[in-house]
Amino acid sequence: MSDIGALVSKLSTMGFSDPPVEHAAVDSVDQWAEALSTVSGLPSKYTLTKTLIFKPKQPKSEAIAPVVVIAKDVSATNSKTIGTELKLKDLRFASDDVLSGIFQTAKGSVSPFALAQVPKENIGNVRVVIDKALLNDTTGKIAFHPLDSSRTVFISSETLKSFIKSVEGLTHVTEMDFAAAAAAPAAAPAAAKSSRPAAAAAPAPKAEEVSGTKLGLDVTKEGDFSTWYRQMLMKAEMYDNYPISGCFILRPLAYFIWQEIQKFLDAGIMSMGVKNSYFPMFIPGDVLEREKDHIEGFAPEVAWVTRAGSTELAEPIAIRPTSETVMYPYFAKWIRSHRDLPLKLNQWCSVVRWEFKNPTPFLRTREFLWQEGHCAHLTKDGAMTEVREILTLYRRVYEELLAVPVIEGVKSENEKFAGGDATTTVEGFIPATGRGIQGGTSHYLGQNFSTMFKISVEDPESTGADRPKLFVHQTSWGLSTRTIGVMAMIHGDNKGMVMPPRVAETQVVIVPCGLSSKQTDEERREIESACLNVEARLKMVGVRAEADLRENYTPGFKFSHWEMRGVPIRLEIGPKDLVNQSVTFVRRDTSAKGQMAFEGMESAIQLLLIKIHDEMLARARKEMEDHTKIVLKWADFVPALNNKCMVLIPWCERSECEDQIKARSTRDELQDQLEDEKEPSMGAKSLCLPYKQPENPPLVHGQTKCVQCGEDAKRYALFGRSY
Amino acid sequence: MSDIGALVSKLSTMGFSDPPVEHAAVDSVDQWAEALSTVSGLPSKYTLTKTLIFKPKQPKSEAIAPVVVIAKDVSATNSKTIGTELKLKDLRFASDDVLSGIFQTAKGSVSPFALAQVPKENIGNVRVVIDKALLNDTTGKIAFHPLDSSRTVFISSETLKSFIKSVEGLTHVTEMDFAAAAAAPAAAPAAAKSSRPAAAAAPAPKAEEVSGTKLGLDVTKEGDFSTWYRQMLMKAEMYDNYPISGCFILRPLAYFIWQEIQKFLDAGIMSMGVKNSYFPMFIPGDVLEREKDHIEGFAPEVAWVTRAGSTELAEPIAIRPTSETVMYPYFAKWIRSHRDLPLKLNQWCSVVRWEFKNPTPFLRTREFLWQEGHCAHLTKDGAMTEVREILTLYRRVYEELLAVPVIEGVKSENEKFAGGDATTTVEGFIPATGRGIQGGTSHYLGQNFSTMFKISVEDPESTGADRPKLFVHQTSWGLSTRTIGVMAMIHGDNKGMVMPPRVAETQVVIVPCGLSSKQTDEERREIESACLNVEARLKMVGVRAEADLRENYTPGFKFSHWEMRGVPIRLEIGPKDLVNQSVTFVRRDTSAKGQMAFEGMESAIQLLLIKIHDEMLARARKEMEDHTKIVLKWADFVPALNNKCMVLIPWCERSECEDQIKARSTRDELQDQLEDEKEPSMGAKSLCLPYKQPENPPLVHGQTKCVQCGEDAKRYALFGRSY
Repeated sequence: MSDIGALVSKLSTMGFSDPPVEHAAVDSVDQWAEALSTVSGLPSKYTLTKTLIFKPKQPKSEAIAPVVVIAKDVSATNSKTIGTELKLKDLRFASDDVLSGIFQTAKGSVSPFALAQVPKENIGNVRVVIDKALLNDTTGKIAFHPLDSSRTVFISSETLKSFIKSVEGLTHVTEMDFAAAAAAPAAAPAAAKSSRPAAAAAPAPKAEEVSGTKLGLDVTKEGDFSTWYRQMLMKAEMYDNYPISGCFILRPLAYFIWQEIQKFLDAGIMSMGVKNSYFPMFIPGDVLEREKDHIEGFAPEVAWVTRAGSTELAEPIAIRPTSETVMYPYFAKWIRSHRDLPLKLNQWCSVVRWEFKNPTPFLRTREFLWQEGHCAHLTKDGAMTEVREILTLYRRVYEELLAVPVIEGVKSENEKFAGGDATTTVEGFIPATGRGIQGGTSHYLGQNFSTMFKISVEDPESTGADRPKLFVHQTSWGLSTRTIGVMAMIHGDNKGMVMPPRVAETQVVIVPCGLSSKQTDEERREIESACLNVEARLKMVGVRAEADLRENYTPGFKFSHWEMRGVPIRLEIGPKDLVNQSVTFVRRDTSAKGQMAFEGMESAIQLLLIKIHDEMLARARKEMEDHTKIVLKWADFVPALNNKCMVLIPWCERSECEDQIKARSTRDELQDQLEDEKEPSMGAKSLCLPYKQPENPPLVHGQTKCVQCGEDAKRYALFGRSY
Repeated sequence: MSDIGALVSKLSTMGFSDPPVEHAAVDSVDQWAEALSTVSGLPSKYTLTKTLIFKPKQPKSEAIAPVVVIAKDVSATNSKTIGTELKLKDLRFASDDVLSGIFQTAKGSVSPFALAQVPKENIGNVRVVIDKALLNDTTGKIAFHPLDSSRTVFISSETLKSFIKSVEGLTHVTEMDFAAAAAAPAAAPAAAKSSRPAAAAAPAPKAEEVSGTKLGLDVTKEGDFSTWYRQMLMKAEMYDNYPISGCFILRPLAYFIWQEIQKFLDAGIMSMGVKNSYFPMFIPGDVLEREKDHIEGFAPEVAWVTRAGSTELAEPIAIRPTSETVMYPYFAKWIRSHRDLPLKLNQWCSVVRWEFKNPTPFLRTREFLWQEGHCAHLTKDGAMTEVREILTLYRRVYEELLAVPVIEGVKSENEKFAGGDATTTVEGFIPATGRGIQGGTSHYLGQNFSTMFKISVEDPESTGADRPKLFVHQTSWGLSTRTIGVMAMIHGDNKGMVMPPRVAETQVVIVPCGLSSKQTDEERREIESACLNVEARLKMVGVRAEADLRENYTPGFKFSHWEMRGVPIRLEIGPKDLVNQSVTFVRRDTSAKGQMAFEGMESAIQLLLIKIHDEMLARARKEMEDHTKIVLKWADFVPALNNKCMVLIPWCERSECEDQIKARSTRDELQDQLEDEKEPSMGAKSLCLPYKQPENPPLVHGQTKCVQCGEDAKRYALFGRSY
């Protein structure tokens, strides 16, 4: 039941037939209500709900006995009260690995339907608590997220009961009156609120929810990373949600970064002789399917156009998830002899991959912007050289524009691009979660596609009449708006975005300060004109400066406003500064303050911007290096991951071994987790085989063994939890 | 039966059920065969056909009696032979207006099914001649374009017979043995070829077809403009066809132009305070439909996504045809007070309009690239100022980058953007066809969308507690890759593309010349190094120069190669030039030749590039002005159109009058056409009400009358045939 089709069909056996409605993925009940308000055709009366999974403190020897609480969103589901009712000790929210390991679900996507996914050996230990207020509500519908937070189904309380009954092996089901429990003064601190007729009334505010109104952030990067990420980017005006799940709006601050990346990268690839072009976004179905391995990777995520106006199309048309199969028939047409090689094309476009996993702005979106380069070479050498040159450019985008350190390497057999021979990659690291993240990939496709699409030339080395055909060696490579998400995760802080200077739309903001009722209008005008003068001087030398002379806003408000948007340098100019002919500067990244003379300020600011960039990069690099551990025995593997580290291990490079590492690190984690439930958890996968191999201890071929399986190790590999 | 649904349903009553297959639009039988080779699931054996419409010489008083010939594509359908058989004099191909006026079809889209579209009053005069070879072929299928050249149906000869019989009122049907007729030496010069089993065999070459193999062009701009346009752009490597009808590939030469336009326009709008952003390409169906007038204009052309992977979507999702309804809900969210105004956003993206009319590269494509700007202002004045500033930028793109003169004006009520208050436009002119073409539009939307989407602020002028709401005044404006097509139609010639210097990817090509077997290797190297030296010197000053040192190609081949691609200046360097320390230059636009000293060549080339631009613009402007006639009485209207002119008329600006002008100019044309069949024909529509009004004769309000209806004229209006 991990797909929506199976769920709908199961529900339909209970007399339920409405399909789930789709909407923007939501993080909170507030967002849920808002998302539903954009959808038409909903039941006239419905109640929002929450499904919570708890776990009591248990001896290590016992099987895990989770508690699933299904309640109205406004009911006071106090864990102590529930624990008392069930006679269980120290109920705590279950960790991510209980959710994924037992319920095959994740935070934000939990619903009663997860019960149908519990393995037989576990279901006997699961306890279910249902809010009586839900069961007694027979006039309206009850809203749940069926599988993830971007869908909602509306069912009756009868259907809910039938569903619970239908879960085989589930024996512990309790109904509970949360309102009554909350009313008992000893048991619950929060008063239960009466249920409301529909989502129109505002839901009860919760501290941990994303709020759209406050100026600052409600959560910390350390405390709730994923909420922090969305809320910070939303409040920095980097993106906005959209009524179609998985689609987001790139607002000007984010698009500016993308344009800077475009300028840098476009100049780089042009100097390599690549030319830009534009191929249609539509792909005929049969063309898409021409390369088998390739299409297997993309087929489940392809969006299909089947209708135009009111005309059904004879053949459905795919929207490109990537353009190999779009372009390569034309490579075959345009390449007639070796003199047409190399053929180097690139396009800047959007692609669509209709993923059903939980969407995340910039990182996992159904439509995203990228460039895709596609080149054909006469020789493998020519292709491989290009693959590495592009990878270097990608590293430079991260390091020189975004102040993000990355590790260059090659992907394992399991992780490479389907249909190609080898994938090279730049891998980043998110210190807050200790996870690796793929930053961009450059593929050597070998002759796989050229054989399939018949892209060949006559061997120019051969002189006979019947010269042999050579299939060209191809490359493809892409960098996407994901870059922006990686940068934000690394540099953002609890005051908002921290922009690396080179991609900051505003690099310096100038705020008039120290003005009170004491000053005359003349003095006020003097200060404002000093601000404008500084703005003009900085613009003259190419610094993106802006004087914020808005009335009706305090300096403090302006400070927070620009800090949220990550402006690298703030200049404050007040009456004293005018006297001293200097300004106060404040760095966004370190909050460091200082004075700077008006005279020569242009150079001083330019130098400071470079210094900020260099220091941001150096700090991020140190964090990454401090969290990259060489591990020489398996026992140290999972503990290192739990310490938010990536690990470098001597590795055999076998596909089965990688599968085993993933399974074993997940399992070990589940056992450890009973001791300490606070750690995040999930299996590790290989991130890359770094080009820069550790030298201490050296890897001795035929002697050093794989950390996991004990076979001969070939290279050090970088493993980690990842996005 | 002007839509495909009706046709299929009609055919199905004859026992025919396969839907038409879609493919790239084709210009020739060669292209047709090639296009079909990319489609799967075709009949194993089929014959390509041609349907030709002739007209005999007739007295003016007689009703037109067209002859429809349905034959195998390889049959020799000699008009003299057919005339002899039918006892009709001087059969000639029917003109476009016979095709459109009587058969409701157009060149390239003619098929037997057009017979079903002939009005009752005409059908009695139509004669049909069917190739016996077609009727006798009972083993395979017969391929026709049902309505346009991007679709093919396969029917049996039985179905063809049934169809012909089903056309009511059609009495003259003749079967003819073209093979036998051709064999008779007196009657036909060309020998008929035996029919071939399927499209795999090459069809008989025809002079007027687009050929993909020859270096030069097969047709002239004057002789067959629409074939010339496609063939010239194809051979210049500006675009390529694509298996999905209406979609084309923008090759590097064309995309380079687009990037130059982007740079120029992006800098222009940024300096106006506009910011770039990116909104999703997908629109929820209900959001799309929120503005009624607006959606009415786009609904028939919207492409719908209904499936992702193997999952049917609960609600179909539209692909944006334009983004008003995508963006404006967010304008409502982001604009909270007058301090948030003006809000000025732009995006560079592709949009999709699934038109069913005959597609044309750059001019009418189902997906195209553009920018769309969307702004909100507090006042109408603010909005109108911006609308005009943008229009000026659009004019400058045409004139300063593309050397294309345009006329600025405002659209009539009939022609304006649906849902807006006023549309301003830049209109171009294609001398070769005498038609106007819309170049780009900038709309004042008024408060229509803001009322619909509730985009309002409190009146900042009012101070009371209960301040009135003001709905914002909006603009939207777009410029697309159509710019490139307009430029190519105007400047291209019979040697290929002629690139305006500022958008030419290669501005100067340097070709070594005068080398023969007489020269030593040393002399050859000297010349080549002189070429490279000139290339380097020009690149240093920012001129896009390229030395063409390819071996195995003659200078003549290289000349043609670069002429086809439109490179503005060719430099030739031979032994004599080295002696004289000078180069020979040849202008692409005028073929003018001259000598230029090595010394100071950088400035000389820069000046020449500017001069070429200025002269290209001046020539095009003179052509346009010479073909823009002030017309003061109706009798001169259609003759002026027939002289390939646009006309300026004193006009009442009434919508009904515009409809009458269109109808009347079409009808007059059909009558005139009996006298002279060579003129193109179609009704005229208003292109714009030019901001720059003619002064001689002056338009006197209350006195000057509308040329068509005699009511009071308000302004001079520009009318013309158009794209």
